[in-house]
Amino acid sequence: MQQLLWINGKREESQAYKSLKSPYNEEIIADVAQSSAEDVTNAIDAAAEAAKEMRAMPAHKRADILEKVVALLKQDRIECAKIISREAAKPIKAAITEVDRTIMTYQFAAQEARRIYGETIPMDGAPGGEGRVAYTVREPLGVIGAITPFNFPMNLVAHKVGPAIAAGNAVVLKPASQTPLSSYKIAEYFHEAGLPSGALNVVTGSGSEVGDVLINDERISMITFTGSPEVGKSIRENAGLKKVTLELGSNSAVVIDEHTNIEKIVPRIAAGAFAFQGQVCISVQRIFVHESVFKPFVERFVEEAKKLKIGDPLDEQTDISALISKGDVERAQSWIDEAIESGAELALGGKSTDGVLHPTILLNVGLTERISCEEAFAPVVHINAFNDFNTALEWVNDSKYGLQAGVFTNDLQKGFKAAKDLHVGGVMINDFPTFRVDHMPYGGVKQSGTGREGIKYAIEEMTEMKLVSFHIN
Amino acid sequence: MQQLLWINGKREESQAYKSLKSPYNEEIIADVAQSSAEDVTNAIDAAAEAAKEMRAMPAHKRADILEKVVALLKQDRIECAKIISREAAKPIKAAITEVDRTIMTYQFAAQEARRIYGETIPMDGAPGGEGRVAYTVREPLGVIGAITPFNFPMNLVAHKVGPAIAAGNAVVLKPASQTPLSSYKIAEYFHEAGLPSGALNVVTGSGSEVGDVLINDERISMITFTGSPEVGKSIRENAGLKKVTLELGSNSAVVIDEHTNIEKIVPRIAAGAFAFQGQVCISVQRIFVHESVFKPFVERFVEEAKKLKIGDPLDEQTDISALISKGDVERAQSWIDEAIESGAELALGGKSTDGVLHPTILLNVGLTERISCEEAFAPVVHINAFNDFNTALEWVNDSKYGLQAGVFTNDLQKGFKAAKDLHVGGVMINDFPTFRVDHMPYGGVKQSGTGREGIKYAIEEMTEMKLVSFHIN
Amino acid sequence: MQQLLWINGKREESQAYKSLKSPYNEEIIADVAQSSAEDVTNAIDAAAEAAKEMRAMPAHKRADILEKVVALLKQDRIECAKIISREAAKPIKAAITEVDRTIMTYQFAAQEARRIYGETIPMDGAPGGEGRVAYTVREPLGVIGAITPFNFPMNLVAHKVGPAIAAGNAVVLKPASQTPLSSYKIAEYFHEAGLPSGALNVVTGSGSEVGDVLINDERISMITFTGSPEVGKSIRENAGLKKVTLELGSNSAVVIDEHTNIEKIVPRIAAGAFAFQGQVCISVQRIFVHESVFKPFVERFVEEAKKLKIGDPLDEQTDISALISKGDVERAQSWIDEAIESGAELALGGKSTDGVLHPTILLNVGLTERISCEEAFAPVVHINAFNDFNTALEWVNDSKYGLQAGVFTNDLQKGFKAAKDLHVGGVMINDFPTFRVDHMPYGGVKQSGTGREGIKYAIEEMTEMKLVSFHIN
Amino acid sequence: MQQLLWINGKREESQAYKSLKSPYNEEIIADVAQSSAEDVTNAIDAAAEAAKEMRAMPAHKRADILEKVVALLKQDRIECAKIISREAAKPIKAAITEVDRTIMTYQFAAQEARRIYGETIPMDGAPGGEGRVAYTVREPLGVIGAITPFNFPMNLVAHKVGPAIAAGNAVVLKPASQTPLSSYKIAEYFHEAGLPSGALNVVTGSGSEVGDVLINDERISMITFTGSPEVGKSIRENAGLKKVTLELGSNSAVVIDEHTNIEKIVPRIAAGAFAFQGQVCISVQRIFVHESVFKPFVERFVEEAKKLKIGDPLDEQTDISALISKGDVERAQSWIDEAIESGAELALGGKSTDGVLHPTILLNVGLTERISCEEAFAPVVHINAFNDFNTALEWVNDSKYGLQAGVFTNDLQKGFKAAKDLHVGGVMINDFPTFRVDHMPYGGVKQSGTGREGIKYAIEEMTEMKLVSFHIN
Repeated sequence: MQQLLWINGKREESQAYKSLKSPYNEEIIADVAQSSAEDVTNAIDAAAEAAKEMRAMPAHKRADILEKVVALLKQDRIECAKIISREAAKPIKAAITEVDRTIMTYQFAAQEARRIYGETIPMDGAPGGEGRVAYTVREPLGVIGAITPFNFPMNLVAHKVGPAIAAGNAVVLKPASQTPLSSYKIAEYFHEAGLPSGALNVVTGSGSEVGDVLINDERISMITFTGSPEVGKSIRENAGLKKVTLELGSNSAVVIDEHTNIEKIVPRIAAGAFAFQGQVCISVQRIFVHESVFKPFVERFVEEAKKLKIGDPLDEQTDISALISKGDVERAQSWIDEAIESGAELALGGKSTDGVLHPTILLNVGLTERISCEEAFAPVVHINAFNDFNTALEWVNDSKYGLQAGVFTNDLQKGFKAAKDLHVGGVMINDFPTFRVDHMPYGGVKQSGTGREGIKYAIEEMTEMKLVSFHIN
Repeated sequence: MQQLLWINGKREESQAYKSLKSPYNEEIIADVAQSSAEDVTNAIDAAAEAAKEMRAMPAHKRADILEKVVALLKQDRIECAKIISREAAKPIKAAITEVDRTIMTYQFAAQEARRIYGETIPMDGAPGGEGRVAYTVREPLGVIGAITPFNFPMNLVAHKVGPAIAAGNAVVLKPASQTPLSSYKIAEYFHEAGLPSGALNVVTGSGSEVGDVLINDERISMITFTGSPEVGKSIRENAGLKKVTLELGSNSAVVIDEHTNIEKIVPRIAAGAFAFQGQVCISVQRIFVHESVFKPFVERFVEEAKKLKIGDPLDEQTDISALISKGDVERAQSWIDEAIESGAELALGGKSTDGVLHPTILLNVGLTERISCEEAFAPVVHINAFNDFNTALEWVNDSKYGLQAGVFTNDLQKGFKAAKDLHVGGVMINDFPTFRVDHMPYGGVKQSGTGREGIKYAIEEMTEMKLVSFHIN
Repeated sequence: MQQLLWINGKREESQAYKSLKSPYNEEIIADVAQSSAEDVTNAIDAAAEAAKEMRAMPAHKRADILEKVVALLKQDRIECAKIISREAAKPIKAAITEVDRTIMTYQFAAQEARRIYGETIPMDGAPGGEGRVAYTVREPLGVIGAITPFNFPMNLVAHKVGPAIAAGNAVVLKPASQTPLSSYKIAEYFHEAGLPSGALNVVTGSGSEVGDVLINDERISMITFTGSPEVGKSIRENAGLKKVTLELGSNSAVVIDEHTNIEKIVPRIAAGAFAFQGQVCISVQRIFVHESVFKPFVERFVEEAKKLKIGDPLDEQTDISALISKGDVERAQSWIDEAIESGAELALGGKSTDGVLHPTILLNVGLTERISCEEAFAPVVHINAFNDFNTALEWVNDSKYGLQAGVFTNDLQKGFKAAKDLHVGGVMINDFPTFRVDHMPYGGVKQSGTGREGIKYAIEEMTEMKLVSFHIN
Repeated sequence: MQQLLWINGKREESQAYKSLKSPYNEEIIADVAQSSAEDVTNAIDAAAEAAKEMRAMPAHKRADILEKVVALLKQDRIECAKIISREAAKPIKAAITEVDRTIMTYQFAAQEARRIYGETIPMDGAPGGEGRVAYTVREPLGVIGAITPFNFPMNLVAHKVGPAIAAGNAVVLKPASQTPLSSYKIAEYFHEAGLPSGALNVVTGSGSEVGDVLINDERISMITFTGSPEVGKSIRENAGLKKVTLELGSNSAVVIDEHTNIEKIVPRIAAGAFAFQGQVCISVQRIFVHESVFKPFVERFVEEAKKLKIGDPLDEQTDISALISKGDVERAQSWIDEAIESGAELALGGKSTDGVLHPTILLNVGLTERISCEEAFAPVVHINAFNDFNTALEWVNDSKYGLQAGVFTNDLQKGFKAAKDLHVGGVMINDFPTFRVDHMPYGGVKQSGTGREGIKYAIEEMTEMKLVSFHIN
């Protein structure tokens, strides 16, 4: 199968193609078009033109288009999950969950499209402001460049394309090199749903080349990026006065206080650690357990992790499959080895077979080890014991990242203390840090990013406020 | 001293006067004008005329007037407290606190006057709504009739007059018969601060007569009342299509869970029970204590209550003085006696000397006793033991009232359960139900009232929303 | 066909039935159950029980139920329109439009169900408020009594049932005697959509009897009523402390300034005057035209009205059919005759054939005539000339009603002056007063009612705010 | 006078000093400390430490401090104006106006400090979100680096320091080299008002050196800058993941439609063009007048401009004084000359005497001339005629800038069209583009900047949203 570009409502040939291989079995899935700078510019041309039509389109029509995309996704739910599963090696169970969340995300986008309120401003609150009727409106930015990661090839695209279209923008989308097919599929759904040609374009190719064109073109008003901190920072530094939203990485932590019901929480934390091989921005990476429950927690956690079935992502029994690339297996393996050398105890896993890194549990890892302080993005967690709750909170905060954190406690004062002191975008009391519903505000502090997603919040980022004042005699 | 009416920016004689006596020592404080129906109508005439000027006044001028009232109150702080103390028999310490809160209330009013925002409506969210610019504004209602109680003669007036003026309304104020002087004082401050004549009028006299005129006059758009449920209900039933906000009574409860630090909380709960002789809408009346800490709680609580000094309200040492009327002493006494006859244990007080009811603590009162289920409005509390937290919550809810409730617990799940299950306007976790700051939303459910106060919320009640839509070709 | 009651998720027999006749041809459409007081009490019992389940139901489930109702309505669109058309004598074209709007209304309800936000309160804004985490939630009221009119048997039910269910309440619905079938149909859809039994009950019978039970039962927390001012006022006066929302009548006016393009606006204004025989709350009743364009406006307007086809409501060609009752024909006729006797000129219509009042246009009607100052609710308008724009605004305001008003002008200052000076709930510049989309805030001032509908706003009315404060050490 | 640095609540010596000269008469006003990199780092150290105290300070205390600054400014109103006038060569009348606005700005800051609300999130709006209580809070960022311009040495500092302190941040402030004294004065007021040492530091010196330290230090979370587009862009590109708010330049335009009352508007537009020698971000630079009123407009405008008195800034009669630097006189002069060479007509001014550029009016300037398309920041306007309103709107939009625009018209459709089509941050209908009250949202699009000021909006930029979710069983 040859995957062409999607520009201005049509499939377009490119000058070069590259084989897309399954991360799991290296089978070739498709030959994917590699955009030239000219292709990208063509996509921006189309988007700039379509942006005018989008800006003039009433909200209820934008909502209708998004609702039709929802209907198409519902209809093709399993097919879509298979696309994800195949290109990302995401276990099919998880892929189906992702499609269901994608549906929800576009539903919220359809609904928020009808809800772009502004405010009337009481100008007469200050001397000199008398006799005005003044109000704000939120106007679309125009063309938005969206750069998306491999780990949720549909839902993280939805979190950019959904609000962008809802707000009346046009989009040029560059999906991750390993997961282009989900994006091309979505583009077709939008086309079928009646989105004007050019309002959503998909271009694939090397990140640096395609991305550079997006970042430099003056007609693009905003870059919305989810991916690594390094690339994110570079985008921010090269994007001039463009708006930039960055959802970057994390090494999310969970704190488990004394008196916590271990039995009840272990399955959820294990899910947070190993779902999609840990390749989730808010995957559980660091577990801090009160010393009084450390031993039983580790036992139950290892037990739970042992249940995970490794295998073909398309197999419904599979819990764990291949990492997105062999390089990532090697990277994770080396970080694990480093930690063990430095004295960490290996409680499970720590090795890979056929390119699949086994669920790995380390105990008492030094907090300056890379497996603790860098983003692992692999099925690896470490569990450390603490004896003072405040110390555990400090450990969580001792990170360059700050996306989400989880805390299990039934002590009311401790719960609110954690809510106050943890320096992250989201604190989940009595839940894992991996918790996300698609309408909540989501985003990080420190090097975890800037800006917020969650449809309503993303729409704010993807519009600009205009003040209008009428002076009345 | 003869206290004349305040109508249209001037002192006005009335045909009759009535002696105002100190509740504490029955000395005559003033001869207070008793409005005829005609006087009240004159006040409404003046208000109706002034309402036009108020509506046209820019927000910053309304704010300036309120800020000047704040400055005058700050300057006359002690004098104002003495007025309150004298007419209401409020211990001077409490009266000073009330003046300080009154200052805060008018400050918030001055600030909210500048912040009457509306919203722009995305009409194109539905088919047929395209091509509109639409927004809402909040316009003043016109003339507001305010009927206020004796227990906070300044601050509960401020909670009605402050937002009314802030929103651009005119007011006819009928203070409680026992506490007219504070209101007349405030009217003078507003006059000095530059409020247009007629924008605030004060009329005193019998509740039924003056009130009836206010309730029946078509030019009054809203009645805002704080007082008894009986009167409140009657107002609501006679006010036709007028807006009516009612802040009525309560028999507020506090729940003290096991493991609570008794030492720490007793002084605060005692303050909540006995401040101003319990004549506070959110006074602590029912205390439910977990059986494991019941005994120490009762001991410490009685000990704390014993410290309270009974005396002349103007004496700085006084904690407890006379109830607002002898009738109230008798009423409270009879309810206490009934409860004791039915088996309640008297732990402290239960008697009165020189018209002052002593701080009274009853134990294990039946929940259908009047001292439990009616509003006591006297320095009486009862303490009952519970052994199941949920039962305690049910006891709190088993009331015709629902203003505020307090719960002390450090169990996170129980805290949130109480927050969810208690059917009241405000749930205070780890605080007494008597907690109020003047900008928070405040008001009851069930027979405790309708509508919300707290300046920002009161302004919403005291304005009406207008939608304006411009159809643009 | 026998139409049974709908109580607790089941059809229920009543002791009496009454024939429902077509207003157009007097054919019997159904035998409709007449509830006894006991039937109504049973319905309230069921609702009170279901209210607990509704309160506990997550928002997304409430939304799902409403979305399923939307799907069922879309599927049965024409069938539903026929039910409306038959029982209300609403021309089928208009009935289809109503169904489409009903779909939109429930869609907005489904969406707003997911959006019941509160706010976190900065308690530390005042001294004494430090150390709190405080927030508000909006909780359902419990059981809501909804009393709906005949003129939009589906969409005005949707404006009460939609937000009530969206907010987590249970409902007892009493539809108008002439239009019960639409309501019973909706109840079935909700049942099919998975609404818990008892969460929506429909009871029919005499307004006074059924209504009285609803108004007096303590378990009903709110009455939401659309109908006549007389009934509305009586409800308000008998409902005690219940919340009451009233959408009452109006004699809506439109002002047409000089320089207005008559050709363009006449068809829309005629639609606003004669749609569903003028039986619309915001029907155009009073037209004020600048003298410079009076003559051409009248000519074109008469011409447009003459095009209207009188006939069977189920005929797709029909524009005008029978009024809801013969009594209404007589009432309207007598008001028309009175006006003519007092000197008004009859430009069209003024008579009825076979119970159908013909579209009637009067010129220069005295503003104290009943056909001007009472709500006509019939296909009758009057057109008066003005020579000063401000006078026209005064005429609009010279009414006991204040629902919506329309103004056509291209003069910016005049447009904003009208927006400011017209005392109504909604001012439509360059549109007829009949304009409504179902998510906009809608409701009247003066005797046109209290409270606002439009799903988001109705949900506010149908919930109560609770403040929760956690004191943190 | 030697002006020392202000670091950690104390005056601090620096290693170098530089003479500050009056732009008007070159007299030496002060010897101003030139910070070394170490000095700046010391200031950041102090701020980082104070940020903890600020974060813990209750809102009402932050408000109190700001209110005390307001009181001090009111007391020293004229003295402050003289400082501004002297260092900036701002005519004293304008300087007094600036102080009055500064007072208003800090008042709004004091008030908004008490109003940092968040929202409760209905997590149960999506499947999987059941059983949560979730809310957002806005937390201070920590340390904010503020870089301010010379043209409003007090009020534009207030727009940064006011909201920063209101929100609980600490600040390192680098004022413009020519106007340091106003900033040092403000720092003293804050100190006197009780601001903790280190919470506001002032460092002066070369923009590149001091600025670079601020931009590179990891402990600074946000840079807020008002100044030139070049510097703004450079800051954005070097600030990595820091938040950056930029208020940059503009070449603001006003459109004057046919039928406009010239007599009435000319004085206001002249004020907008020449106030403080045109050194205002939203100074009127481009005037587009309908050809039908072009001639009378030009005549009246020239007449009005001729009234302006050139002189010593401290003289109360003076309207126009020296530009901030000789270089700016030369730059503006050369742009004027270029335009004239290219065919523009000189209607007034065009020359300088004693370093004061005279009010200059050019007619029919080519829109690609630098005096039209660059930011003039000098007392120079050009007036061009148009014959089609839409063309005038296009001319306004044909700019790399987009801060504010003004439009005079009484045509309702044209007014709303301008409101919709003009691509700027603020559209002022029937007002000059120079309109600003200090609580309105203010900021530009395109190269005019990113982010919004106006206290409420600036506080949003200066805080970060945290989501807190409690999972309740």
